[in-house]
Amino acid sequence: MPIEKDTLPENPAESNTEDKNVPVQRIVSGIQPSGRLHLGNYMGALKNWIALQDRYESFFFIADWHALTTNYEDTSPIRQNIREMLVDWLSLGLDPEKCTIFLQSDVLEHAELNLLLSMVTPVSWLERNPSYKDQQTQITGRDLSTFGFLGYPVLMSADILLYRADHVPVGLDQLPHLELAREIARRLRHFYGPVVPEPLPLLTPTPRLLGLDGRKMSKSYKNCIYVGDSSAEIWDKVRPMVTDPARVRRSDPGDPDKCPVFNLHQSFSPPETVQEVDKGCRTAGIGCIDCKKLLVGHIETILQPAREKRQEISARKGFLKDVLQEGGKTASGEARQTIREVRRAMRLPDEDLFA
Amino acid sequence: MPIEKDTLPENPAESNTEDKNVPVQRIVSGIQPSGRLHLGNYMGALKNWIALQDRYESFFFIADWHALTTNYEDTSPIRQNIREMLVDWLSLGLDPEKCTIFLQSDVLEHAELNLLLSMVTPVSWLERNPSYKDQQTQITGRDLSTFGFLGYPVLMSADILLYRADHVPVGLDQLPHLELAREIARRLRHFYGPVVPEPLPLLTPTPRLLGLDGRKMSKSYKNCIYVGDSSAEIWDKVRPMVTDPARVRRSDPGDPDKCPVFNLHQSFSPPETVQEVDKGCRTAGIGCIDCKKLLVGHIETILQPAREKRQEISARKGFLKDVLQEGGKTASGEARQTIREVRRAMRLPDEDLFA
Ligand code: SF4
Ligand code: SF4
Repeated sequence: MPIEKDTLPENPAESNTEDKNVPVQRIVSGIQPSGRLHLGNYMGALKNWIALQDRYESFFFIADWHALTTNYEDTSPIRQNIREMLVDWLSLGLDPEKCTIFLQSDVLEHAELNLLLSMVTPVSWLERNPSYKDQQTQITGRDLSTFGFLGYPVLMSADILLYRADHVPVGLDQLPHLELAREIARRLRHFYGPVVPEPLPLLTPTPRLLGLDGRKMSKSYKNCIYVGDSSAEIWDKVRPMVTDPARVRRSDPGDPDKCPVFNLHQSFSPPETVQEVDKGCRTAGIGCIDCKKLLVGHIETILQPAREKRQEISARKGFLKDVLQEGGKTASGEARQTIREVRRAMRLPDEDLFA
Repeated sequence: MPIEKDTLPENPAESNTEDKNVPVQRIVSGIQPSGRLHLGNYMGALKNWIALQDRYESFFFIADWHALTTNYEDTSPIRQNIREMLVDWLSLGLDPEKCTIFLQSDVLEHAELNLLLSMVTPVSWLERNPSYKDQQTQITGRDLSTFGFLGYPVLMSADILLYRADHVPVGLDQLPHLELAREIARRLRHFYGPVVPEPLPLLTPTPRLLGLDGRKMSKSYKNCIYVGDSSAEIWDKVRPMVTDPARVRRSDPGDPDKCPVFNLHQSFSPPETVQEVDKGCRTAGIGCIDCKKLLVGHIETILQPAREKRQEISARKGFLKDVLQEGGKTASGEARQTIREVRRAMRLPDEDLFA
């Protein structure tokens, strides 16, 4: 996928900066409300977001409408999932003073832009979308032959284009989705002239974290460490974790590349520790229990402050509601501005209809 | 299509009536903004609406988003078309004191409900929709393989269900569209319990009006009499109209069934006149020019008051804007109420998310 730097249209975020010499670029990203975050979610998204909020004008949203594309039959967990995810976001360090945190369904313009984009999007673009057929095959027991599931990439494009984002933080696997949003932005330009910028990908690390049983860390495998777990819970999970199966006795040398504990070290421990463990394991210089204690220590340096933050949040009555309300206001303002521009470009009615 | 009276859910309009003994039923209907109305449009929709506004709580809207499903490539006429159509509606007697007149795109909840309904609508329901393939074949020179065009019936269902309508005025040919809206309402109930009533069809006369050249009266054939035409324009159009081709001389008897002038008499003249013309034509008792004068006289009894009304409207500065603004407010209130109920039934976030 050729993405040239010079395909980036004039930067619309520029006018929003206080210092005209330092244009702040804008990013947008969202996650479906899946409930409590596990360490894989943290590494795959939140850690990046927390770093990005200091350098970009950032819009982060809970994609509750997206959750319906695959979970329309049982919607009962959505509300609880939203609350839990929001608490995790904030406790980990996403800061409503630095970024805009909001709920997708609080901004109706997502649905409006979704409708407008649907008018110019060929069905064939959606049918050839690789994750369409993939997910239909992978997710069993649910009927995914719905119009909403087919239109998932259109809604995702609306989410991005609605904020005139310059960049979208993505892992490599999500690049095709972003490319569709870019194609739709170009198609708008083709019919109606320049409307919204074509967002560029901001490639972010999304390491593949292994779970307690050595498979990919995933809620559905029940092999997760959650960011809200207590110290005791974490140790109770890590202590019995599978390690290199060839390392039976303390005196047997091990192969860290075959051990999910080492996989977690690579994400959570500093380079020195990773090196030390790698060597110690191969030479039987370190025992698995000590190795796991080391790991848990480094996980705790992230989760202990998050626990304190969590206490703080639960003590501030109305805080969660305020965060989404404030974020929703900011997001709505930007969304309405985009819709005004899209309506004008598409020559649709606006406040000047009778002027 | 079996539509049983007893499939009608409890009447939600009942609580809105002042007199509890006379429940007012609610209807909703919309037309794409096609610009100036011709007599075929009047007979097919407006005449019915004007009669219905006295007996039903009525919501009539200009379906500007629908216009994009087939006209996304050239959107330039939409704004003008909306203004012209609204003037025609009001001049013919649609009364904002009696019914709610609004612009679809003024009520974002149409887009929201469209999105929510899309989640439960199987793609196969849309592909089997007869007008999908039909229109793709009939409308040439435009690419109708878009996601928005495929989703046309979903948006239409949202338009109807958003107002919890008891009835939808339809011609026979539109019954399949309404049936899809009913199927979607049932599917909502299947997943989420009772949400919105299943609207019943209110079959209304939609006579097939012939145009000046004897083909169906249609803008694209340029064979229309417009409701905004002046008396002189109308006579200039009707005078040279084709009649029964076998009636060459005044003394030749004619066959009214082969004459488009007679077709218009059947819609615009009182029964006595229709009978008189039928007999006079077959016996050469009436000449074609006199027959046409009679017709124009009856068309004028409708259009002359409309012309006066039109003058009145254009003299009231800001009137059109006010009508859509007021109607939009009323419609939005009802739409938000429905969305609240749908969100609750679907267990989506609402104002009580953190309560
Ligand atoms: S020492 Fe550490 S990396 Fe090596 S097998 Fe044991 S737990 Fe795994
Ligand atoms: S008399 Fe009237 S109905 Fe008969 S052919 Fe002439 S115009 Fe037509």
